[in-house]
Amino acid sequence: MSYYQGGNQGYRPPPQSQGTQYSGGGAPPSYGQQGPPPGAYGHGQQGYPYTGPPPQGRPPNSGPQQPPPGADQQLFFWFQAVDTDKSGALTTEELQKALINGDWSPFNMETVRLMMNMFDTDNNGTITFPEFAGLWRYIEDWKKCFQTFDADGSGTINFAELKNALRTFGYNLSDNFINLLIKKYDKYGGNKNAGKGDVTFDNFVQSCVTVKTLTDAFRRYDTDNDGWILINYEQFLELVVNNR
Amino acid sequence: MSYYQGGNQGYRPPPQSQGTQYSGGGAPPSYGQQGPPPGAYGHGQQGYPYTGPPPQGRPPNSGPQQPPPGADQQLFFWFQAVDTDKSGALTTEELQKALINGDWSPFNMETVRLMMNMFDTDNNGTITFPEFAGLWRYIEDWKKCFQTFDADGSGTINFAELKNALRTFGYNLSDNFINLLIKKYDKYGGNKNAGKGDVTFDNFVQSCVTVKTLTDAFRRYDTDNDGWILINYEQFLELVVNNR
Repeated sequence: MSYYQGGNQGYRPPPQSQGTQYSGGGAPPSYGQQGPPPGAYGHGQQGYPYTGPPPQGRPPNSGPQQPPPGADQQLFFWFQAVDTDKSGALTTEELQKALINGDWSPFNMETVRLMMNMFDTDNNGTITFPEFAGLWRYIEDWKKCFQTFDADGSGTINFAELKNALRTFGYNLSDNFINLLIKKYDKYGGNKNAGKGDVTFDNFVQSCVTVKTLTDAFRRYDTDNDGWILINYEQFLELVVNNR
Repeated sequence: MSYYQGGNQGYRPPPQSQGTQYSGGGAPPSYGQQGPPPGAYGHGQQGYPYTGPPPQGRPPNSGPQQPPPGADQQLFFWFQAVDTDKSGALTTEELQKALINGDWSPFNMETVRLMMNMFDTDNNGTITFPEFAGLWRYIEDWKKCFQTFDADGSGTINFAELKNALRTFGYNLSDNFINLLIKKYDKYGGNKNAGKGDVTFDNFVQSCVTVKTLTDAFRRYDTDNDGWILINYEQFLELVVNNR
């Protein structure tokens, strides 16, 4: 088995390499175009409040906008409620208000930007309703995934749970590296959680997407799939800056 | 000359390497322990509002706290004013309120975290007053540096100005990479500036510190100083995650 197996849609795990240092475990998930998880893992609880349930009615200050044909009405009203300047598109700040963790804390801004970068398909710095609908589905899939891996139902992911999740996605990483991720993404969760070793939903998504993105980037250089790359100074800078 | 020259206090530029692809220009600044710029470049305008001038008097809701002996009184009162929960230490959210760009916008959260990571010497997720005083001096130095490189006095740094700044710091980077930085850190500046190609003060600091940090990380692997490194999968992941 290869040292990494995550990949894009249509990606097949690289064939076994003798020189590899890392072996992946478990089948790679059926990744969508946007990256990790989705689907597959969820047991589909309804009403789990990770992304903030759309309000039941129209927000009181909404204008005469109607949802586009075929659109989820509640989701459209939720979109309008957070589109406070009524521009018809969400900025990162507005998007942050739409995305809520299980403990009702807002998503950290890095994860909001990550989502913005993934779903702002016309790359204009804002999210239209169709883009938002795609983003919402993506987060719903992650939510199911998070619930599956939160084995003790604590609402956060601990070391063993993160290790299991990443291994299931095909990334077989050392305990040292998992600890580094925990330390990093726990810290990003806000000071109130710092050092507790628990990763909230937004940080779980961020850490998994980070591992996937970096693995993909590494793999593009690792053409002989031996787990080592030769890279020059500016290639290195570009690679890191492009993936943050 | 080497392809990179920035470094820590006491660092001497590596000797000329024949195999290098990049040549640095200009002398490296007299870096402090915390990283790039400081001093040297400034022309020391007073009252330039990049970091929000400390208030002239005590904030109305302040308690009976007295500044520590030898401390800058105004800075201490400013510290107390943003320490809204009166805990005696600033969280990242409180620190963000203390750090203001030239156009009075708050620093982006990534730069606030960067500063927090640099100056939170006991690594407890908050900044005490002595740590804050060090951070403030560091930003004052960056402010002078920013003013020096903002050649057209526009209040933001454009492509040519950023290129000149990085070259002066000893980083001779391709136009492609400078453009990538502009695109990345302009974007982070908020949607209102997206795509204009102007880098605000906070993003300027963030981009320069990023280049320095990544260069230092690269150099640790580039023991023969030829501008190329051989690195394995998990070393790569660690390197990127540790430097974001």
